[in-house]
Amino acid sequence: MKAARFHARGDIRIEDIPEPTVAPGTVGIDVAWCGICGTDLHEFMEGPIFIPPCGHPHPISGESAPVTMGHEFSGVVYAVGEGVTDIQVGQHVVVEPYIIADDVPTGPGERYHLSKNMNFIGLGGRGGGLSEKIAVKRRWVHPISNAIPLDQAALIEPLSVGHHAYVRSGAKAGDVALVGGGGPIGLLLAAVLKAKGLKVIITELSAKRKEKARESGVADHILDPSQVDVVAEVMKITGDKGADVAFECTSVNKVLDQLVAATKPGGVVVIVSIWSHPATINVHTVVMKELDVRGTIAYCNDHQETIKLVEEGKIDLTPFITQRIQLQDLVSQGFETLIQNNESAVKIIVQPRLK
Amino acid sequence: MKAARFHARGDIRIEDIPEPTVAPGTVGIDVAWCGICGTDLHEFMEGPIFIPPCGHPHPISGESAPVTMGHEFSGVVYAVGEGVTDIQVGQHVVVEPYIIADDVPTGPGERYHLSKNMNFIGLGGRGGGLSEKIAVKRRWVHPISNAIPLDQAALIEPLSVGHHAYVRSGAKAGDVALVGGGGPIGLLLAAVLKAKGLKVIITELSAKRKEKARESGVADHILDPSQVDVVAEVMKITGDKGADVAFECTSVNKVLDQLVAATKPGGVVVIVSIWSHPATINVHTVVMKELDVRGTIAYCNDHQETIKLVEEGKIDLTPFITQRIQLQDLVSQGFETLIQNNESAVKIIVQPRLK
Ligand SMILES: NC(=O)c1ccc[n+]([C@@H]2O[C@H](COP(=O)([O-])OP(=O)(O)OC[C@H]3O[C@@H](n4cnc5c(N)ncnc54)[C@H](O)[C@@H]3O)[C@@H](O)[C@H]2O)c1
Ligand SMILES: NC(=O)c1ccc[n+]([C@@H]2O[C@H](COP(=O)([O-])OP(=O)(O)OC[C@H]3O[C@@H](n4cnc5c(N)ncnc54)[C@H](O)[C@@H]3O)[C@@H](O)[C@H]2O)c1
Ligand SMILES: [Zn+2]
Ligand SMILES: [Zn+2]
Repeated sequence: MKAARFHARGDIRIEDIPEPTVAPGTVGIDVAWCGICGTDLHEFMEGPIFIPPCGHPHPISGESAPVTMGHEFSGVVYAVGEGVTDIQVGQHVVVEPYIIADDVPTGPGERYHLSKNMNFIGLGGRGGGLSEKIAVKRRWVHPISNAIPLDQAALIEPLSVGHHAYVRSGAKAGDVALVGGGGPIGLLLAAVLKAKGLKVIITELSAKRKEKARESGVADHILDPSQVDVVAEVMKITGDKGADVAFECTSVNKVLDQLVAATKPGGVVVIVSIWSHPATINVHTVVMKELDVRGTIAYCNDHQETIKLVEEGKIDLTPFITQRIQLQDLVSQGFETLIQNNESAVKIIVQPRLK
Repeated sequence: MKAARFHARGDIRIEDIPEPTVAPGTVGIDVAWCGICGTDLHEFMEGPIFIPPCGHPHPISGESAPVTMGHEFSGVVYAVGEGVTDIQVGQHVVVEPYIIADDVPTGPGERYHLSKNMNFIGLGGRGGGLSEKIAVKRRWVHPISNAIPLDQAALIEPLSVGHHAYVRSGAKAGDVALVGGGGPIGLLLAAVLKAKGLKVIITELSAKRKEKARESGVADHILDPSQVDVVAEVMKITGDKGADVAFECTSVNKVLDQLVAATKPGGVVVIVSIWSHPATINVHTVVMKELDVRGTIAYCNDHQETIKLVEEGKIDLTPFITQRIQLQDLVSQGFETLIQNNESAVKIIVQPRLK
């Protein structure tokens, strides 16, 4: 079968590899669509980061580059391994793409995503969604109803990142959320916040992304920091109170500063973005306003609730699919678009085999 | 009566001023002992900071310099104002020294200390504990049993700061706490943590303060960062897990970095110290470990529980009183000791009138 495999920085190849074995306890999935993530792009341009470099096998998966890529995917079950009785061939599914040690508890309330050596399917080994087929442990396979089209279902993984950030914030319906950055993550997070009944303010510099925030209806206010004083505007919108919660989705220090300044006393600032260097934070304000500055990473028991939001029609993922491509065009049309013209793309989704 | 009044930076005078009026709703307190706080020293050396400068009256108290200083005090009730029926002359009390607008709700669960223009008695006006007498609104007066000597009772205010930091951390009995810095605040916080059943690790550079941490029994481990690798030691002590909670009480960036590195995934880092400049924080670690970095300021409905800890003998404040002086020696023996020889002093307490 065809698979996109990462060999080294700048070297991703579409290759023929053997089909996966559907071992006991696993589910064989015929991949429908797989999104390209900022993380994939980082691996391509600056990696390997999450990917275990050739010769340095990952402690849990035992694999190293070359590895199959893709962690944001949907598909149809084509086989179930021995002992899997609660899922049927033909079932539509998405995957919570974790590589986690077998002895880590993963029940409700467990923060299994913080366990030692955690990695992701599609980065740390165990196949990926940028291939025709994949076999995934039952625990990480989430059935979805046929009400969710399979192309939209490929966006459930990054949407779960937004859901988890929402959960980390402790926000509730009626709260005002300030989202710094309207890239894919900021927009999908905003969609979750809207669905949960919050008032959403997005700050964004890029004209195309401001347009996307507008057209998708996920923001009540869109502020451009090159045109307005973000903190003053948030104070105006909130009657001088400040935002209840804020989410940093840019890795830009100035944005973090604005969020800290615009959040109400006792409020929460969630850092969603991945920083390659330390940030400077006005800790005096953090102390005097008793802010909580919280990190959030990936998801943890978020998929079911996220799937429900889409199934119930509370979130429409259509506006966030900006391009559909075939696997052989992954680098030329996928990564290159993201490198050249990042702003008009939200999610590019890839079809591993024409259907 | 005699009072220590702040006129301007470097200019604190012991003056004769009129006795306070015990207005309706207030309690007249004959001050027994009043501690000198790092904040008082800051005001003396670099102020006015909290103190409203001469000609700029505080929006709630309406006062500006000169103001009477002292916010860490105990005393005996000598008169009660009209309408005060639940407190008697002769009662021993401590004060939660807030200046807060009248319309701010102060019941259980209310975060009244984050209200607009909050300031402190002894800094923002309304008299202070560095005087013979003071009249304080009933809401801010907390009775104590005679089991607590009045000298120790003067330390309940900074102890409440420690209690509030503990509450902010969400820590529970059995947790491991890492306290960065064993100054007065770090030590008193450690005393609360011990009383609450935590295992306490203190990091401290100063020989005298390490000695005080040892002799007061508030620490299970004392680590000197000039002698050991703090993060490695914490990992050893916690079986490679990391501290459950950490408290930054130094304003030193390196210490903050150590706390962030030594806290377990999902753990909490509380910033207690006051920073005069932004800190750099390894936000990548904050995100990947899903840390909570929380500010804490003063206290809020903490006094009753703090008083109980001392009344029940769970905290012995004796070791933290390192000097007793008279009001006329406030600058020469109080502030000067703290400036010259900060390390051997924990709390210097002042007696406004010889008894
Ligand atoms: N925590 C997690 O689990 C997780 C998961 C996935 C992605 N991420 C991270 O989330 C971050 C966001 O991802 P993305 O794909 O949306 O990235 P992106 O780069 O596409 O989006 C960032 C957006 O911020 C905007 N921006 C830049 N400067 C700004 C400013 N001064 N004010 C307002 N907006 C500004 C940009 O125009 C852009 O639209 C990345 O760092 C990514 O690595 C985190
Ligand atoms: N948040 C609040 O409500 C509140 C209330 C009162 C005081 N404070 C603040 O708390 C902080 C601590 O107060 P304090 O009176 O204890 O101050 P302090 O300066 O006496 O104590 C700081 C201690 O840190 C130690 N230290 C310095 N560098 C270190 C290092 N690299 N590793 C380990 N220890 C190191 C010093 O030796 C000293 O003992 C101050 O910033 C003060 O303003 C905050
Ligand atoms: Zn991703
Ligand atoms: Zn103080």
